[in-house]
Order: sequence, then structure tokens, then C-alpha cells
Amino acid sequence: MQQAAASPLSMVRSLVAAALLATAAPLSAQVHVSPLVDPKVAELRDKAMDGDNYAWDIVEGLTTEVGQRLAGTEAEARARDWAVRKLTAMGFSNVRVEPFDMPVWSRGHESAEILAPFPQHMVVAALGNSGSTGPEGVTGEIVGFDSVDALSAAPDDLVRGKIVFVDHRMPANQDGSGYGEFGAPRRQGPTVASKKGALAIVIRSIGTDHHRNPHTGVMVFSDGAKPIPAGALSIPDAEQLVRILKRGQPVTMRLVLQSRVTNGQSGNVIAEVPGRDPSLPPILVGGHLDSWDLGTGAIDDGTGVAIAAAAAKRIMDAGRPLRTIRVVWFGAEEVGLFGGNHYREKYGKQPHYALIESDFGADKIWKVDSKLGDARKSEAEAIGKALAPLGIVTGKFDEADGSDIGPMLADGLPGVGLSQDGTRYFDLHHTPDDTLDKIDPAQLRQNVAAWTAVLAILSSGIEEPKAKKRR
Amino acid sequence: MQQAAASPLSMVRSLVAAALLATAAPLSAQVHVSPLVDPKVAELRDKAMDGDNYAWDIVEGLTTEVGQRLAGTEAEARARDWAVRKLTAMGFSNVRVEPFDMPVWSRGHESAEILAPFPQHMVVAALGNSGSTGPEGVTGEIVGFDSVDALSAAPDDLVRGKIVFVDHRMPANQDGSGYGEFGAPRRQGPTVASKKGALAIVIRSIGTDHHRNPHTGVMVFSDGAKPIPAGALSIPDAEQLVRILKRGQPVTMRLVLQSRVTNGQSGNVIAEVPGRDPSLPPILVGGHLDSWDLGTGAIDDGTGVAIAAAAAKRIMDAGRPLRTIRVVWFGAEEVGLFGGNHYREKYGKQPHYALIESDFGADKIWKVDSKLGDARKSEAEAIGKALAPLGIVTGKFDEADGSDIGPMLADGLPGVGLSQDGTRYFDLHHTPDDTLDKIDPAQLRQNVAAWTAVLAILSSGIEEPKAKKRR
Repeated sequence: MQQAAASPLSMVRSLVAAALLATAAPLSAQVHVSPLVDPKVAELRDKAMDGDNYAWDIVEGLTTEVGQRLAGTEAEARARDWAVRKLTAMGFSNVRVEPFDMPVWSRGHESAEILAPFPQHMVVAALGNSGSTGPEGVTGEIVGFDSVDALSAAPDDLVRGKIVFVDHRMPANQDGSGYGEFGAPRRQGPTVASKKGALAIVIRSIGTDHHRNPHTGVMVFSDGAKPIPAGALSIPDAEQLVRILKRGQPVTMRLVLQSRVTNGQSGNVIAEVPGRDPSLPPILVGGHLDSWDLGTGAIDDGTGVAIAAAAAKRIMDAGRPLRTIRVVWFGAEEVGLFGGNHYREKYGKQPHYALIESDFGADKIWKVDSKLGDARKSEAEAIGKALAPLGIVTGKFDEADGSDIGPMLADGLPGVGLSQDGTRYFDLHHTPDDTLDKIDPAQLRQNVAAWTAVLAILSSGIEEPKAKKRR
Repeated sequence: MQQAAASPLSMVRSLVAAALLATAAPLSAQVHVSPLVDPKVAELRDKAMDGDNYAWDIVEGLTTEVGQRLAGTEAEARARDWAVRKLTAMGFSNVRVEPFDMPVWSRGHESAEILAPFPQHMVVAALGNSGSTGPEGVTGEIVGFDSVDALSAAPDDLVRGKIVFVDHRMPANQDGSGYGEFGAPRRQGPTVASKKGALAIVIRSIGTDHHRNPHTGVMVFSDGAKPIPAGALSIPDAEQLVRILKRGQPVTMRLVLQSRVTNGQSGNVIAEVPGRDPSLPPILVGGHLDSWDLGTGAIDDGTGVAIAAAAAKRIMDAGRPLRTIRVVWFGAEEVGLFGGNHYREKYGKQPHYALIESDFGADKIWKVDSKLGDARKSEAEAIGKALAPLGIVTGKFDEADGSDIGPMLADGLPGVGLSQDGTRYFDLHHTPDDTLDKIDPAQLRQNVAAWTAVLAILSSGIEEPKAKKRR
């Protein structure tokens, strides 16, 4: 698909003289070629598609030389050191860490064991902010529910003093929809179970795979609910537990989920490509540097920080852009958007030309949305035209999203949203399996190509490097 | 493929009168239909293909109600109790356990941690018969090799006191070839490393997947080599270690592989469909009841015992066969063919009409080999013709294999070999991921259909049940 997309572009180049290409106006209807795109933009895009190595180099380095980097831990601090060295070596300006303090939840020993009627071990991982069972664990009878709604509807007496199990059937979808609805067992389940007096809760992992790897993720005890131990069983184990429960005998589990909360520090790593006109608002491109602790944070979000920085670097290589591009590798996203909120407090009232974030793996981008405002409709359309040859459809003009940038977009700052194919994202999300081997280098390049084209348009007016002009 | 296979059979049935079907002679060449098959055999085969539930019922029950059943442990003893109850309930005769004593290796706590230059945890599992590190573990510099040959060729000085890492690139193949050659790091690696004075050895798991699940498996320290700790890293971790080693800095690992060896008991579970003529040699059909401890032993070898018993049960349901069918669920296969050897000592000198074992998952059978001797060539050919509509090709007439039955086949006993598609077998083999959800019920039925047809032919002369005759 990506190979095929290249040929209409070559047709454009041969059919139309360079002098005609000053704007992104469409060709007349009788010429059946791609919509017209600024040749500089097309060239930057196609060079990235053909051979970007920057993004792979970043994600390979970060996942190999740091590995997991749980928010607020010394591993995340090593990741910041690594990031500063890397971004400096790549030639970015104003490379800096903007630190902030935060509470740090971290896991200890974990196990789940069915004691009766069919003794066996299961694979479990605590959810972020789970209460700790202590080293002895807790032992209780399992009471199972098909959904959080079923748990909510149950009389407290049925739940009190027991270990709640919540099942669900999250489907895999291209757009990742399902994570909202089917994520409820993780997000709301622990609070509902706690308020009903449950001893602990285990959920079917919020994921779409069938491997013995649990999916962790954050949850918060709300409405004054007392923290209880809360874990996720791997999906094969959750299905096993359903089969065991269906036998109709009382099921007893011993659950050990040790964890602790300490005070720690995280920080955002920021690097810039300075624009020719520093008075103009910057373009923020980012991802998050922290990861869950089970995998090495390759697709969540090693590729995100890699794509953002690679695209900015490609613009920098091509010359000095008109507008400053600010690369932000947010800290502590996974555990509650700490980095995004810190940036927002510090810079959120200042104008930004656009915000863009990559945090959904590195499979092919298939859609571009934007929220640049009516006055910039033609800019938004030009982005759509530049991305079409990569197999990307244009979506809405009044929408953009992103995790860390979400609150600022809600505040009214403009943004662009590049939607990646999420069909297999939740096979890997927050599991030990989020490792480098899961990244498809060709699809990663398509991401960088799309981002580069978007940045080329937004940062418009790239100035050729002086060295090149002298030739 | 399996659906399409049914229609030529229907054609045979409508084209040819039942009276013509007494033997398995091919139709005349001008009629373009499948080779002729005994209609009773075809009917038994097709009924299994359309709706066998016996095999699923067995493997679902065994993996759910017992789970893992490591050889010689109380879990394997519970599996034998389960098996006796199940086989008795299914109506088999002479259901019994034939016990034997054996040494039992079992694992304790395990971890692998890179201390320098890039601190991170890795996923590891001890290989069966690994030496124990004790609770403190061992710490040493890693020395890496691409193969056991490279390790063998290395000077002892390079290896002494270090933790050896052996990489390899096992390919996935339909026939499972590759496990022999590429299994060398597990089988020979620990002995070679020990004899060179290594502190411990970790290998890239012998497998073809990319999940954070290590593949365990048995190895034996030979030639007087002193046991050292020996583990398998998951494949993503092994690839990570290669990337870390390629950075060129000294790599230090702390390895904890606790294990112990005790005395225990295993046993073979045996059940029979008595033949009309008890003086005739029995047909042995089997699989192994024990499993590795990491998964629930679904494809290795829950499906094997299920397929063998389901096919025998289908013959039993159809009437009393001429020859006795002996179902053997071998104990302690994984750790050294203890059950197969025990059976061989007890019964191996007695004539058997054929030996068949299923121990390669439950994906589609694609080939049938046999070793029934020249005098029984037409019987072997009839088997091939009966299986062809299931998409099964006929292979050799002088070959058959199986794990527990291997030594008896080598002794000269006759046998049939039904080769399953092993393309994804080594994704799961000996890992935590060997669970029920990996079984494709349609392919499992194809296995039972093929086995039923083979048993129908071998046990020839099925007598209609009296109850049926009275109707």
C-alpha cells in the first residue's frame, strides 16, 4: 500500500512544472493525479518514507539502554539522562529537563493461586495504585461478574469479604474504541468493589491478546473508597477462572500483590528547533518518556517520542523553519498525566501554533483530524492532501486528541491528530510483551513521513541551510 | 479445506452401491471420485469430523480441573486420579494406574537481572535438571555465542567463571524440523558450558514466537559434567541481550534459578476397549499425561491424550472391535520418557498390532506414515485412502514415530505416524502460553477423525452393538 502510493506522486512531479507548485491548489479535474502538494513537503515526506532511521535509532536505543522506565523511579531518571544526551547529540537546541515531584507507586512480589477446588497458579499483575496485600497475601472466595455494571448491581452482602472477579470482552478495533467502554473493570471496578466491602479485586486484563501476560494500567480509588488490592489476570487465566467458576463449586484464591508508595521526581524533557521568527508561537510535538514497568515501553511510548523527534529532526536537517518546533517528551503520563499537567501549568496560557502527540504505537497512520480553527481551514486541507498518498484519509476539522496534550486541547489550543491503526495495540499495551520486536520498521517510517509532512506545512517557510545555498 | 473434503465422499456414497464396498479397492479410473473406502470407516471418520466432542471435553477438563502436571509431583498424581475417573466414566474397561518411582526436579524462585551497563530485568525459566543457584543467585559477566558449535570452539579461558549465553535462530516448519538441530543450545549447551568451567548458562528459548514467555524443557548433564544453573530467556529478552552485548561493554547478570530434586512417583494410566478376540495383539494408542509446569499442558500433551481416547471411544461406541484397543496415557514423558520406558519394560516384549502416539499439538494432520511390514501393505494403503479426504497425504511405509513409543518402534514393533502441522507448535511448546485457548476445535476434530479412521481399519471387524441390532 505504501509502495503503491509513491507512483502517483512521481506522476505529479513529472506532469507539473515546479513554478506551478507554489500553493497546494488541486490540479484541474481532467488530470487524474493526486491532489497537488508543495514539492518541498512531498520531498521531505517521501525521503522519510524511503529511509528514516532516526525514529528506529531512538526507540532501539531507549528500550535497549534504559528498558522500562516507570514514572518517578530511578529508571525514569536514567531515561531523562539518556534523552538529554540523545537530543543534544541530534543537534536540538535548548535541551532541558523540567522536573516535578510526584507520589510513586511501585510493585513488589505478586502471585495468584487457586487453592480450591482445582489448585493451580495464575499469572497476575497489580494495577497501578493497587493496595498492598503485604507479603502474606489475602485469601478469599471468588465472586465473579461479567461486567462492572453487574458488580454495581450486586447486593453488598454477596461481595463483602470476598475477592471480586470482573470479566469482559474487549474487542480489537482499528480506532482503539472499546478501550473506553471495556476499560471500566480497571478504571471503576476497584472503587465499586471496595465500596461494597470486597477483600480484593482481580479483573480480566484489558486487552485483546491470548498470552499469559497481564495488562497493568492505572486506576484511582475515588469517592473516598479505601484502597484494596487490585490486579489483572492474564486473559488465558481469566478464561480459565471463568471455566472453574462455571463448575459451580466455591472457588478460593490466595492473592499476593505487594506494592508501596513513596515520594519521587519525574520531569519533562524538552528540546527545540528554533524558528527564524522567535516571536511566533511554537509547534509542540511530543510523546511520553515514561512507560509501565512490565515491558520496555517500545510501543507505549518509545515510538511516540521517537516519531515526534525524528520528524522535528528531519525539518531541522532541511533548514531553519519559520516557527519554533518544540519537542516534548512528557514524564509520568501513564500514572496520571503528571507531565502534561506540569507543562500546561507552565506554558498552557501561552499561544501555541499546534499541539501534536503520538501515543498509540507505531502501526500505520490511517486518518488525520485537526482543530486549527476556521481561519486555517486551507492549512488543514493542505495537510490532508499531503498525507493522502501515504494512505491517510482526512477526518474532522474540529477535532484533535492526545493524552498529555488533551487538557490543553480542551482549553482551546489548536492541534492535529494523527490516528494510528490500533488493531493490535491492545494485544501488547501495558504488558511484558511491549518490546522492540513488536515494532514494524516500515510502518514506523510511514508515521515519521506523515509527521514530517505535517510539520513541514505547519512550520512553513523552511529556509535552505546556508551550506547548501553556497553550492 | 476440511469442508471441501466432505463432498467427494458424499459422491462416493451415492455413486457406489453398499454391496460393492466390502474392500478398499479403488474405483475404475473413469469415475473421478476419491479412492474407495470401507463405508463403515468413512462413516466413523465423517461423524468424528462433523462433531466430535470427546476430545475437547477431555482436554478442557484436564487443563481446567488439574492444570499443570509436572512429572512426579502431586499435581501429576491428581491428573492420574482425574484420568481414572474420566476414562471409567467414558466406559473403558480395565482402567488402571501402573506406577513407578522417579527422581523429581522442580523449580523455585527465578529471576535474571542485567546489573551493568544497562540495568534491567529479564524473563527467564530454568531448564529441567538445571543446577540451583540457591536463593542468593550467581553474578557474573556474560559471554555470548551464536551457537553451541561456537561455544564448543571457544577456549576454556574465555568461558571460565562466566555466565554463558547461547543464541540461535530456530525456524518454524510444518514438520517441526529445526527442533533437532536448533534444540542443541538446550540439550548440549549446559554440558559444554559446564565442562569449560562456566558459572551458569542462559540460552535463547528454543521456540519460534516473540512473547515474553520462556520455553523450558529437559536437559541432562552428560560426560560427568557438574550441574550448573541453566535457564532459558524469553525470545524478546534474548534479542535484547544480543543488542546489549553488541554495544561492546562488559555485561553483568545476576541470575537466580532455584530448584530441587526429590524422590517421587509417576505412573501410566491405562484403559481398554476389549476386543472380541483377546488372543490377538492389542493396538496401543496414547499420549502423555504429564506436562511442563509453566502452562496447563493443553497442546503438550492434553490434546494427545484426548485424541487417542476420543478415537478409541468412538470405536467403542460403534460396537466391539475385533482387536483390543489399549489407551495409554503415559506418565513423566517430558523429563525423560519414564512412562514409555516403564511400559516397554512391562509389555515391550509382547506382540502389539500397532503403536500410535499423539504428541505434537492438535493442528491439522497433514501426513500419515506407517511401519506395518510388507505383509500388511494393503492395510497401510487402506489407511492412506481413508485419510486422503481429510487432506492427509500418504508418506512412507517403513516409518513411524512417537516419543514414548519411540524405543518400542525402534525395537521393531509396528506403528502408524500421524503428522500434525507444527508451524505454530514451537510458539507455545513448554511455555506458560500452552493453554486451552490455543487449541482450534475444528482442527482437533480433524485429528480425531483421522485417528478414528485408522483405528477402525486396524481394529477391523467392528461388531454392531446388540442394542442397535434389536431395533
